[in-house]
Amino acid sequence: MTRIVKKFGGTSLGDLSRIRRAAERVAAARQAGEEVAVVVSAMAGETNRLVALCREAAPLHDAREYDAVVASGEQVSAGLFAIVLQSLGVPARSWAGWQIPIRTDDRHSAALISEIETAALQERLARGEVPVVTGFQGLGPDNRITTLGRGGSDTSAVALAAALRADRCDIYTDVDGVYTTDPRIVTRARKLARISYEEMLEMASLGAKVLQIRSVALAMTHGVRVQVLSSFADEPGTLLVNEDEIVEQELVTGLAYSHNDAVITVYGVPPRPGRVADVFGPLADAGIVVDMIVQSKTPAEGAAEITFTVPRDDLARALDVLGTAREKIGYSRLEHNTDVVKISVIGIGMRSHAGVANTMFRTLAEKGIPILAISTSEIKISVLIDAAYTELALRALHSAYDLDAAE
Amino acid sequence: MTRIVKKFGGTSLGDLSRIRRAAERVAAARQAGEEVAVVVSAMAGETNRLVALCREAAPLHDAREYDAVVASGEQVSAGLFAIVLQSLGVPARSWAGWQIPIRTDDRHSAALISEIETAALQERLARGEVPVVTGFQGLGPDNRITTLGRGGSDTSAVALAAALRADRCDIYTDVDGVYTTDPRIVTRARKLARISYEEMLEMASLGAKVLQIRSVALAMTHGVRVQVLSSFADEPGTLLVNEDEIVEQELVTGLAYSHNDAVITVYGVPPRPGRVADVFGPLADAGIVVDMIVQSKTPAEGAAEITFTVPRDDLARALDVLGTAREKIGYSRLEHNTDVVKISVIGIGMRSHAGVANTMFRTLAEKGIPILAISTSEIKISVLIDAAYTELALRALHSAYDLDAAE
Repeated sequence: MTRIVKKFGGTSLGDLSRIRRAAERVAAARQAGEEVAVVVSAMAGETNRLVALCREAAPLHDAREYDAVVASGEQVSAGLFAIVLQSLGVPARSWAGWQIPIRTDDRHSAALISEIETAALQERLARGEVPVVTGFQGLGPDNRITTLGRGGSDTSAVALAAALRADRCDIYTDVDGVYTTDPRIVTRARKLARISYEEMLEMASLGAKVLQIRSVALAMTHGVRVQVLSSFADEPGTLLVNEDEIVEQELVTGLAYSHNDAVITVYGVPPRPGRVADVFGPLADAGIVVDMIVQSKTPAEGAAEITFTVPRDDLARALDVLGTAREKIGYSRLEHNTDVVKISVIGIGMRSHAGVANTMFRTLAEKGIPILAISTSEIKISVLIDAAYTELALRALHSAYDLDAAE
Repeated sequence: MTRIVKKFGGTSLGDLSRIRRAAERVAAARQAGEEVAVVVSAMAGETNRLVALCREAAPLHDAREYDAVVASGEQVSAGLFAIVLQSLGVPARSWAGWQIPIRTDDRHSAALISEIETAALQERLARGEVPVVTGFQGLGPDNRITTLGRGGSDTSAVALAAALRADRCDIYTDVDGVYTTDPRIVTRARKLARISYEEMLEMASLGAKVLQIRSVALAMTHGVRVQVLSSFADEPGTLLVNEDEIVEQELVTGLAYSHNDAVITVYGVPPRPGRVADVFGPLADAGIVVDMIVQSKTPAEGAAEITFTVPRDDLARALDVLGTAREKIGYSRLEHNTDVVKISVIGIGMRSHAGVANTMFRTLAEKGIPILAISTSEIKISVLIDAAYTELALRALHSAYDLDAAE
């Protein structure tokens, strides 16, 4: 018998009519002979409401109490989902993380799942009952509720699918799959039938918001087949699979973009052995991750210009750190800019094909878009450009890599 | 060291400014050297919202799922209360019923507390921490959340006070104590400094809505001193104590009234041995509790008229049962009336004093108020009258029994 874990996000559970629609999908799958376990997020807006209450209670609050408060959202949606399933004639019961239990470490609000005891769930599944499990949460070693961090329900679902050795984990969300790029910007973006775990990891970490990164990494580690699909449409979504299951490999699978970077340029760094360490050492000490780095070509003995990116949220802190270290580094001035975008082309096909980078640079040059910085990995190339060119660059690259859907 | 359990109801926790006010009371008590454990209801309106969601999910829903959904309200308020206490410098943590655990039987939505394990709480109290416990809920034998029924948080608080051998259980509510009668009707009603458990039981079961009846019975059984007081005023409330602690016993302690009764009159019941059993037997079989009964004085051999009250919620069912039994009873016609009120005078002083009933009948007669039915117990006398006379009767009786506050 096929065993499927179905996870429904907040927008799929926005009100009772949507919960009913989601429950009908579960009933239909069971009718078709599948064993189904459900993982639910909180109803849309509920987690935000509870987080706001905690903040109002005290700006700095005990993460253990925050977890107890915020985890109640899934307790409600799981109970309601079970009630609706029962009303459709499907035997069901809700399971809170602490009841199963889904054991985690003690990092409250950012806990890692350590173990899921499945004996009870296995037994219920075998007799045709649908377990409805609260996503996003587990039980810490101190017998208190932990949460996995925002978006953690995807991770709960994949972990449960791995523990139950499910044949597939369906993640129902408000988009109907993974696209070659953001269809709101590139109208000819295509939905991918399949994508490899590694490509999905890059897509997620480079700005695509379809799945939580952790859940993709977990799926890759445990070989869980994950399907991303819409709870509002009756069509297959995108399947995350092993690389070797993708028969016809495209050179490039997708384009991602993110506005999460800020660029800093340090001018007039005097010629001295270790000057680069003088700049990046204090930032590393402050826990700020530096990404793309460009050092200007200057006469060997002259002053250098060093450009690099940091997460936008760390910009103020980075400028502060560099200000303090000014005398030691001896630079003349700093500039920073947040009006930039990082655009990435991603594809496992790059491993065996040259010319991917060249196509990118040529395409951007043809459109007159200056490249501010570049970084590469085995399966992606990212460039930093002025944010004003975001749409132009994405559309041009989407065509250049033959990703456009047929008209 | 004095140990107090403080219970805050929903209106005392209506928003975060009210939660802060409640937490400040706890901080002040601790400052004054008291050990404090807190029991919380859900924030005002929250339980109703969750109940409505369950009803919308399915009119007939699994009580176990209802319990899981509805119990989340206290989980939120307990976490927030703990956060606010911590922000006031008071060490605190929230405890869900399942964490302590507060064990109950398996009657979901109407569970009875069977045991409270207090070892962990005792240890925390001893080192100065304030446990904030979710009211209204516990853990059933199947490891699922149970709830105690609406208003169950009072019962949770009294049970916890008994288990912790607390010196007192303070119930903070939106009234500042127990009054001789409803002050919205009788402006000269007085707040009682003390009332005996038995009187409070009668007051609660006869319509006074200050405390849940079960919590009063539990306090009486375990000898828990309960104080009812307002979370919005800084003054002592009403203390529930043993009868022997009330030094100056009044003849009458208070007046209660309730609109929960309906009256039925069966006309023309033929003279036959066992005719009363023919009327009340079918009602008893249907689980309908008959309260006040009046049988008209008729010639020994003639047809009788039998009048009695049933709970208003059971009226339709009672008429149905009597309709079905018409042939067997052989009555000529039925009449019913819901426009009645039951007014009760309550006082342990009645045990040793005659004349209480007489004062009641004389006072009502002087005001021209007909008495439709009477029932009595050791410490109360109740009369059923036309609802239109409610205020007139309460005010007249309040004066007649010398209950009026000095002007």
